[in-house]
Amino acid sequence: MAKKRTNKYKKHIKKSPGSIIYTGKKSTKQLFIDAFDYGPDFINELELKSIEDTFNFKNSKSNSWININGLNHINEIEKIGKHYNLHPLVIADIANISQRPKIDIYDDYIFVILKMLYYDENENIKIEQISLVLGPNYILTFQEMEGDVFDNVRERLRIENGRIRTLGADYLLYALIDAIVDHYYIVSETMGNKIEDLEELLFNGNLQDDLSQQVLSLKKEVLKVRRTIFPIREIISRIEKNEHALINPNSIQYYRDIYDHAFQLSDAIEIYREMIWSLMDMYMTTISNKMNEVMKVLTIIATIFIPLTFIAGIYGMNFDNMPELHYKYSYFILWGVMILIFIGMIYYFKKKKWL
Amino acid sequence: MAKKRTNKYKKHIKKSPGSIIYTGKKSTKQLFIDAFDYGPDFINELELKSIEDTFNFKNSKSNSWININGLNHINEIEKIGKHYNLHPLVIADIANISQRPKIDIYDDYIFVILKMLYYDENENIKIEQISLVLGPNYILTFQEMEGDVFDNVRERLRIENGRIRTLGADYLLYALIDAIVDHYYIVSETMGNKIEDLEELLFNGNLQDDLSQQVLSLKKEVLKVRRTIFPIREIISRIEKNEHALINPNSIQYYRDIYDHAFQLSDAIEIYREMIWSLMDMYMTTISNKMNEVMKVLTIIATIFIPLTFIAGIYGMNFDNMPELHYKYSYFILWGVMILIFIGMIYYFKKKKWL
Amino acid sequence: MAKKRTNKYKKHIKKSPGSIIYTGKKSTKQLFIDAFDYGPDFINELELKSIEDTFNFKNSKSNSWININGLNHINEIEKIGKHYNLHPLVIADIANISQRPKIDIYDDYIFVILKMLYYDENENIKIEQISLVLGPNYILTFQEMEGDVFDNVRERLRIENGRIRTLGADYLLYALIDAIVDHYYIVSETMGNKIEDLEELLFNGNLQDDLSQQVLSLKKEVLKVRRTIFPIREIISRIEKNEHALINPNSIQYYRDIYDHAFQLSDAIEIYREMIWSLMDMYMTTISNKMNEVMKVLTIIATIFIPLTFIAGIYGMNFDNMPELHYKYSYFILWGVMILIFIGMIYYFKKKKWL
Amino acid sequence: MAKKRTNKYKKHIKKSPGSIIYTGKKSTKQLFIDAFDYGPDFINELELKSIEDTFNFKNSKSNSWININGLNHINEIEKIGKHYNLHPLVIADIANISQRPKIDIYDDYIFVILKMLYYDENENIKIEQISLVLGPNYILTFQEMEGDVFDNVRERLRIENGRIRTLGADYLLYALIDAIVDHYYIVSETMGNKIEDLEELLFNGNLQDDLSQQVLSLKKEVLKVRRTIFPIREIISRIEKNEHALINPNSIQYYRDIYDHAFQLSDAIEIYREMIWSLMDMYMTTISNKMNEVMKVLTIIATIFIPLTFIAGIYGMNFDNMPELHYKYSYFILWGVMILIFIGMIYYFKKKKWL
Amino acid sequence: MAKKRTNKYKKHIKKSPGSIIYTGKKSTKQLFIDAFDYGPDFINELELKSIEDTFNFKNSKSNSWININGLNHINEIEKIGKHYNLHPLVIADIANISQRPKIDIYDDYIFVILKMLYYDENENIKIEQISLVLGPNYILTFQEMEGDVFDNVRERLRIENGRIRTLGADYLLYALIDAIVDHYYIVSETMGNKIEDLEELLFNGNLQDDLSQQVLSLKKEVLKVRRTIFPIREIISRIEKNEHALINPNSIQYYRDIYDHAFQLSDAIEIYREMIWSLMDMYMTTISNKMNEVMKVLTIIATIFIPLTFIAGIYGMNFDNMPELHYKYSYFILWGVMILIFIGMIYYFKKKKWL
Repeated sequence: MAKKRTNKYKKHIKKSPGSIIYTGKKSTKQLFIDAFDYGPDFINELELKSIEDTFNFKNSKSNSWININGLNHINEIEKIGKHYNLHPLVIADIANISQRPKIDIYDDYIFVILKMLYYDENENIKIEQISLVLGPNYILTFQEMEGDVFDNVRERLRIENGRIRTLGADYLLYALIDAIVDHYYIVSETMGNKIEDLEELLFNGNLQDDLSQQVLSLKKEVLKVRRTIFPIREIISRIEKNEHALINPNSIQYYRDIYDHAFQLSDAIEIYREMIWSLMDMYMTTISNKMNEVMKVLTIIATIFIPLTFIAGIYGMNFDNMPELHYKYSYFILWGVMILIFIGMIYYFKKKKWL
Repeated sequence: MAKKRTNKYKKHIKKSPGSIIYTGKKSTKQLFIDAFDYGPDFINELELKSIEDTFNFKNSKSNSWININGLNHINEIEKIGKHYNLHPLVIADIANISQRPKIDIYDDYIFVILKMLYYDENENIKIEQISLVLGPNYILTFQEMEGDVFDNVRERLRIENGRIRTLGADYLLYALIDAIVDHYYIVSETMGNKIEDLEELLFNGNLQDDLSQQVLSLKKEVLKVRRTIFPIREIISRIEKNEHALINPNSIQYYRDIYDHAFQLSDAIEIYREMIWSLMDMYMTTISNKMNEVMKVLTIIATIFIPLTFIAGIYGMNFDNMPELHYKYSYFILWGVMILIFIGMIYYFKKKKWL
Repeated sequence: MAKKRTNKYKKHIKKSPGSIIYTGKKSTKQLFIDAFDYGPDFINELELKSIEDTFNFKNSKSNSWININGLNHINEIEKIGKHYNLHPLVIADIANISQRPKIDIYDDYIFVILKMLYYDENENIKIEQISLVLGPNYILTFQEMEGDVFDNVRERLRIENGRIRTLGADYLLYALIDAIVDHYYIVSETMGNKIEDLEELLFNGNLQDDLSQQVLSLKKEVLKVRRTIFPIREIISRIEKNEHALINPNSIQYYRDIYDHAFQLSDAIEIYREMIWSLMDMYMTTISNKMNEVMKVLTIIATIFIPLTFIAGIYGMNFDNMPELHYKYSYFILWGVMILIFIGMIYYFKKKKWL
Repeated sequence: MAKKRTNKYKKHIKKSPGSIIYTGKKSTKQLFIDAFDYGPDFINELELKSIEDTFNFKNSKSNSWININGLNHINEIEKIGKHYNLHPLVIADIANISQRPKIDIYDDYIFVILKMLYYDENENIKIEQISLVLGPNYILTFQEMEGDVFDNVRERLRIENGRIRTLGADYLLYALIDAIVDHYYIVSETMGNKIEDLEELLFNGNLQDDLSQQVLSLKKEVLKVRRTIFPIREIISRIEKNEHALINPNSIQYYRDIYDHAFQLSDAIEIYREMIWSLMDMYMTTISNKMNEVMKVLTIIATIFIPLTFIAGIYGMNFDNMPELHYKYSYFILWGVMILIFIGMIYYFKKKKWL
Repeated sequence: MAKKRTNKYKKHIKKSPGSIIYTGKKSTKQLFIDAFDYGPDFINELELKSIEDTFNFKNSKSNSWININGLNHINEIEKIGKHYNLHPLVIADIANISQRPKIDIYDDYIFVILKMLYYDENENIKIEQISLVLGPNYILTFQEMEGDVFDNVRERLRIENGRIRTLGADYLLYALIDAIVDHYYIVSETMGNKIEDLEELLFNGNLQDDLSQQVLSLKKEVLKVRRTIFPIREIISRIEKNEHALINPNSIQYYRDIYDHAFQLSDAIEIYREMIWSLMDMYMTTISNKMNEVMKVLTIIATIFIPLTFIAGIYGMNFDNMPELHYKYSYFILWGVMILIFIGMIYYFKKKKWL
């Protein structure tokens, strides 16, 4: 099985470096392109039929957002990349869906790779890569599949004279990144809740067999999300410091706001990490506590009854000459002695706080 | 339940980025505004009825401190923000009470977000956000609820010709931040005491069932407080380095003093963290020690009485031909043997230091 | 045995610093040299007989890649080094196969040491050192043994007018490093699979005796690979920043791509490290859980039967006067009592969730 | 109790920021001031009666060291502070004995806070704050109590034409700091010895009940001392880099020497920290080892005698038809069987290396 | 005992700071000085009788290496120091053998302190301090005892026209440092072997009583060596960056080579640290595993025989009316029942994989 899993990379190696290979799951899904062409006082929402329809937006005077879904259509991606003068490595990065979030700043465009995070219906975390290219008056976005976190941005685009309509493409880029980061909050919150649920289970001494599995898979989730969120700060920093002609200085304050959010998220995730380690520790102590309790029960029972059984054993012996056996009340006296021993033991355990 | 908890953020996403949403608990509490207008030789303490009453202070020649309680009144917050030319993102940050402490430096005002920390009556830590805006001759403070840590500052304001009355608004900002940081000391001290109390419990072998819960929740508290206190140093550093026109160079030394306090607090909290980890370790060893003790009791009893019971069992057998049974003193000799075994065992355990 | 193992270094010390010593296993393997001499429109693939045949490429106008296999032939290595004006320390570094990956930038050539990683047939990780020297129009590579990760590069060289043929030696260097880094992905992926396999074993409670050995040796592998991959980022950074005449500015973007890959790999390896630590923790809790289960079985059996055995012992005593013995139904009543005790115990354990 | 402990800070808050409050224990101790007034060829050792007697030294031409003991005399401290033009915050810092070690560099004086460390008669670590003010030709030192680590410096001052007499006040400051740091070595050494003593106890399996307490309190000591020593490096660095007029460039080399010492101490303390963590780990394994031993004894005894007791029980049954009971030698044969079982068990445990 | 150990430092404090005190063991060993005076075409190897004989080399035109053994001869050290214009602190540092490795760069000489590492005959690590002073055409080395790691350097010096003879004193300094660092490899390798030996012991389940002691003392060794090796990188960096007149730019590449070695060693030691922590963890799990095995044996035996003994006990009771006792085959039926129970239990344990 392990062999099969590595295929993806083995295949990759057969090609030249910088060659464009789609590393996701092969699918027969159709390419789906939608576009927004807008100005302060108009907006056109278009569903584009072919890749060539996207070419006009490059030199139009209005702002445009062209959203391409379906990275398995490598040839089309390459065509659009060439038309928009993207560097071959940029096109390769778009197609390779296991990129680390990053920013590449070119003279005439800015290229950003981010990850969209969401929970699927089974509460498993899903990571989908999105590539954004900011040109002078357009934004290209490339997604693996239809369905994204941008519905909110679309609605705002449709409102006449909204801030997003009057400001340039750099503000749209901000709005898109902001929408992505906003979704991280849901993921972060959900993870926090999961941790609290596990904590509660542990506090109630509910040691299910798969608890350590849950802790471990939660830890993996946290590590994955961390890897997704941490690079955001660096990306925004580079936008801030670069003073690129495509970014209006007035927009910087907005990017700074994303930076603050990313910082806050990173903080939260670091705390999650610490909490999960603590959970594991606590699980361990809880097990030990339970075992202690089990041992106490065993010890109490054994310590009380083993000596008593010994005494009973004594008077079960068959020696000819055992004078005690023949006294009239010795049986009852023995009962008395045994009850006294019993009470003494109970008292001893009470004093030791085992009972 | 988890779903319900995430609502806050899901709602947030429906709005535009930078839109002003109050993220705290909805309440019907009234907006409450009080103001101090002062100079070296006069002071007016005012309770303002409406948000418009705060507008005059912007261009007055005296220094003013306007304190707005009730962040649920978003519209009013927005009005005052617009009048004082605050950036839309600043107003959004004021309304969003889950901000990380930070500073945003604008050309004509400085915006600081901090957290007030205090213990409520149940010894639970409470965190309340406070936003401060320093303008040329005024300070705006925004709080979620009435009641704060500034009573001391108010009293000093009422003293004629006090340092706080003669120096500018930048000194008032220092005094307010200093009051907030001073309260951190109480929290830090209380946490230190809690840790020491837990230590003492552990040292006395008092292993309550919920001890690990207490350790864990203490750890969470420490992480929360740490997150609150750590950014202070960066905030003060930026004030120091920025050489903003609003900050008198003579005040820098005072801010530096807060910096030292924040450093000292951070140090203390790092030590708390280490101590709590140690507590958990120690809890673990204490449990193991206890179990060891339990095991020893069991082992001693079992090791003494199991062989003796075996011997008694032997002479309880019903074989026809068991010569020992018929000797006159064999019963008493057996007792002697068993007592010798008993003594030997006790001696053995003494030598092993189990007794 | 330890003594024998240190021989390598003890020997090393007898020589002068910077003296050229081959630190790998002595072998009688032949020196094997192959070369590519190419331009946009021609390519010569040569197998060179003697070290002197490599000398012509230094001043030829075409690009060349000379690949020398067999570091045990120190004299030949030294000759070629002298002809190509390599610093004595560079030649010493080539021969010493336990170098850390690094870059040394000289005025007229760039010297890079890297490690090729691959799994051998026993799934053990193998590390082979490769030294690369980039001159104005040639690349020298030095390997310990024949067989490498560059077959892909060779195939691309054979394609007429490919990018690799039209661009200079600096692009060939990039292609070679990229091929090495690409192989790291296979190793990283395989390690990830190994970790997941161990996880699965643990989740299934499959506590083989050598599990902790497997975890430990996996950890060693991760540490080794980490040591190999981490320096790559620094190496690429130095190429980027140095603005060396030998590196065409247009190639920088390609090196930057390797940098991104190295970053991504480092990220992955850090996560592996965390996961392996967690595995060890989890192994520990699993053992404790198992022991808990064992203890419960023991305790249940002992707690049920020890008191019952005591009762049976009582009525095995031989006192003359034991009235219960003579009642007609007392035996049956006793059975009843014992069954009640049994049921009571079972109920008690059910309530404690031990059953 | 916890409430009482926080009083110190609650009180503090009632005052203005930067107000001068003595935070140590109230005491009725007298203020004690001694002074050295010296030049290369003369020295006056004075015991000053009143605070006003310290005023002359400010403008004298000779070098002076004025040592004020008794921080509870706030008014006097304030007077001297005003006379020597100290910033109000400096005076507040002198009075507040829970400062972090730090340096504040003013135009005409340098203010340093350090901690003196020593062990009291009960081997508890004591920390006493000392504030040093370096002026053009004087040094002021403020201590909480009489008795310090400077006797050595005093003796050297009394030696005519010694280096300390001929060089300026900046060299005296160095000598004083050096004396403080030298005492850290004693503390560091003592801590090292304590750790070794605990190690030895553990190695000898001497698991006293309070061992984990000792480890924990040792850890606390290390954390405290670390907090005291770490800032020294930063303080010295700032003296070095600042090029303050009060510090003769020739003295820098001496300060650099303190820096090296502080570095060495920090190194040692980091090692102590690691060793203490290891101690705790080792304590844990030692407990586990002991428990293992206990369990083995129990298991050996139980495993040998429980089956034998069972056999004895069999032949204690009262069935009418038990043929073995009536054979002549069956009792002796049974003994033989039981001895064989016994020997077999012993052999088994030997093979398992439990015996 | 602890008191006695601290004497060293208590004594130190009685002297002035920067005073020259030998902190090693007092000994009556003679001072031993040997010198090499050399140029490309001549070499004089001298054994010097008195300290004054070393004075001529200062202004000679040839290169010289003067090696002083015996730091207990403080007066002689001081004399030579004065003649060569060494700063008093340098002389103090030479005499104090517990210095951290460091470099002090003066205008006319460079002062380096390093540690020589080697294993003594008992496999204990030994650390000896060596001080090196590089002047314009001489090197002074100060060692505590005769015997060092430089025999290799001496042999190379004796070879006519060798690189070391033709290059200046700065190359000799490199050769000496390189010889020291080369010896670190032996130590590093030996430590690696020790770790592997311990691993093997653990893998074979060989839990000697002193295993944790061995792990702990190994950890101490690693910490010590780390402290010795880590500063090397900083020392070399400072030589590289300083561009001191005494260091020929052509030598920098050689120092860079030492830097690479130091980096490689640091890497190796970091891995050792991780491995040792893992060993401790593994030791812990091995103990737990063993205990688990012990518990299983106990539980199996007890669980099988306790119920059987109970049954035997039942039929050992003396009730008058126990019908089973009188049936002809009941004894044999009971045996059958007990064998069935036995088999059932065995089957149960097999299923649970305890057997």
